Amino acid sequence: MKVFIPRKTLSEGISLLERVIPSRSANPLFTYLGLEVRPQALVLFGTNGEVDLEVRLPADGEGEGRALVPAQPFFQIVRSLPGEGVEASFAQELLLSSGSFQTRLGLAPVEGYPELLFPEPTKGGEGPFPVRTHLPLGEFLKALAHVRYAASNEEYRAIFRGVQLEFGSKGVRAVASDGYRLALYDLAEPQPFERKAVVPARSVDEMVRALRGVQEAGEVHLALGPGMIGVSGGAEGGLSVRMAARLMEGEFPDYERVVPKEFALKVALEADPFREALRRVSVLSDRQNHRVDLLFTEGSKLLLSAEGDYGRSQEELSVAFEGTPLLVAYNARHLLEALGPVEGGVELLISGPTSPSLLQAGGGYRAVVAPLRV
Amino acid sequence: MKVFIPRKTLSEGISLLERVIPSRSANPLFTYLGLEVRPQALVLFGTNGEVDLEVRLPADGEGEGRALVPAQPFFQIVRSLPGEGVEASFAQELLLSSGSFQTRLGLAPVEGYPELLFPEPTKGGEGPFPVRTHLPLGEFLKALAHVRYAASNEEYRAIFRGVQLEFGSKGVRAVASDGYRLALYDLAEPQPFERKAVVPARSVDEMVRALRGVQEAGEVHLALGPGMIGVSGGAEGGLSVRMAARLMEGEFPDYERVVPKEFALKVALEADPFREALRRVSVLSDRQNHRVDLLFTEGSKLLLSAEGDYGRSQEELSVAFEGTPLLVAYNARHLLEALGPVEGGVELLISGPTSPSLLQAGGGYRAVVAPLRV
Repeated sequence: MKVFIPRKTLSEGISLLERVIPSRSANPLFTYLGLEVRPQALVLFGTNGEVDLEVRLPADGEGEGRALVPAQPFFQIVRSLPGEGVEASFAQELLLSSGSFQTRLGLAPVEGYPELLFPEPTKGGEGPFPVRTHLPLGEFLKALAHVRYAASNEEYRAIFRGVQLEFGSKGVRAVASDGYRLALYDLAEPQPFERKAVVPARSVDEMVRALRGVQEAGEVHLALGPGMIGVSGGAEGGLSVRMAARLMEGEFPDYERVVPKEFALKVALEADPFREALRRVSVLSDRQNHRVDLLFTEGSKLLLSAEGDYGRSQEELSVAFEGTPLLVAYNARHLLEALGPVEGGVELLISGPTSPSLLQAGGGYRAVVAPLRV
Repeated sequence: MKVFIPRKTLSEGISLLERVIPSRSANPLFTYLGLEVRPQALVLFGTNGEVDLEVRLPADGEGEGRALVPAQPFFQIVRSLPGEGVEASFAQELLLSSGSFQTRLGLAPVEGYPELLFPEPTKGGEGPFPVRTHLPLGEFLKALAHVRYAASNEEYRAIFRGVQLEFGSKGVRAVASDGYRLALYDLAEPQPFERKAVVPARSVDEMVRALRGVQEAGEVHLALGPGMIGVSGGAEGGLSVRMAARLMEGEFPDYERVVPKEFALKVALEADPFREALRRVSVLSDRQNHRVDLLFTEGSKLLLSAEGDYGRSQEELSVAFEGTPLLVAYNARHLLEALGPVEGGVELLISGPTSPSLLQAGGGYRAVVAPLRV
């Protein structure tokens, strides 16, 4: 069994798998990369036990079969190959040649390797992923990228260490929270089924990375089964990816009740200048709570100010607002994180100086940010 | 006292001082940045106790005087200023304004700050730096960049943790060694005095960084005094830097005797393809000694090969050589480090499989690399 593949194509493929395959693992087989030769393709696969990833690359194969190579040396070698093309032939060892360079890599027996289950995009309603749908890929990536920051990093926060995907007749929602803050992103893509699935935040990161690699495909296929989510995308005959991720058990507690509904002040801002002013002013803020005061005054003025051990800073912005001018204080970091993925216009909806505010941006993004009690 | 300065100019100045001024120090005053307002300039200065650096920036000053600001918050604020220009006015506090942003930073009293002694380029033969010379700046930087890697990182290696500069009638030489390897770079710039000065490797790094900031100046002024070296460069009325560094006590033991003089094989190589082949082949090399074999054979062939736990690699290069074909093994890392700064052609002069080799490149660079005893 043998395969010919352009070096560039192979490099693209391994850049997607590089992060998933661990360099060390309690299960040494996880540190291996799987290679499957097919007549028109080289399929790379790997797992870290939480996420399984398969990348299909167009290639010229002779014979069919699978092999396992030690991933880290393989990645390093491929990155530095001298030729435009690569020939890989499999026997007792993998013989890789490119230009005047040759390498022989030991293979591990494929028998012990865990079976990776991926949804077949063409088959629905059966197998380990009975529920199927598809979404605009760009929108799906946007939803994940907008809420990811709000997921908890703390071990004991269990379910909050994931991003909840909600499918239903109203559309698809991605939501994340660490119990203190909340971010959600709604896609107006009504679904014929109701389902909630909590994907571990780290697996969300791998999912985003893998799907960005096939972004031009335009669509992502989603597949849900007991305790598993599958995503796939890519071009027929070109680069395509399939990923399966373990889901977390359980679902988020009712979070709708913390989303404020009534507001004393509605402010329209441009994300970029607001973000930059926040960053500048907060340099001198208190190192414990990163407090920044936002003082809204008549004449469409917003004065940002902060004070700490080294001194104090302030900056004035012109903003449009409706409602009662007031003073409200935030942890600048929380506000910056909530603003993180937003471009263009953003609305800051303030309930009052002591109750949660809502940050809202076009395209279905809402974030709950609690003011500092001062 | 007050100064107006373009934000970009101030940022450039700060980028040179940022690495020198520590964010923490046993002497808290070292974490402060000095600012000196002059009629046509803003002078920034700082020290880490080993290296003192002064950066002169063209600016529009009113009044004259010095102030100390906490460096880290000042750096962070300047990096994010919104306007094209910055106004800094000094009173009880520093009031910094740019666009609609204002900050007040607390000042520290300048009285406790150590006196920084820099050579005055215009005055020679007196003060703390009696010996003066100047060199082409680009060449001086090249010399430092070529030998720096060979300096020791180990605490107990004392003098080998520095780069020795040698001034004399034959020219100027930079040399570094860790006792196992040796790198030297000769500048054909005869000097009317004989002197050796060992600059700590870390101070060499700061020196290179600061002088790169004024590279277009074309010349560097060097000044030597008891236990100190000063360097300065820059444009009259533009950005200029002055640095003073403590020297290490003592000098290198006689190293000339380890530089091989007779060779069994002289090989002409191109640095880039040789380096890349070494990198590729060494991926699979033994993880302890990174052994790569170089086999020279009739027909101007060089076969590089390496073997380790995962497998083995080889690559053939066409090279020109004179002498007896032979097999020699090196630690690939040592060879790569010695090749590090070299561009274009390089000569590998091999005494034999068990005695030191010499790597030599145009412009005065020589590196001694010991083969692995196999």
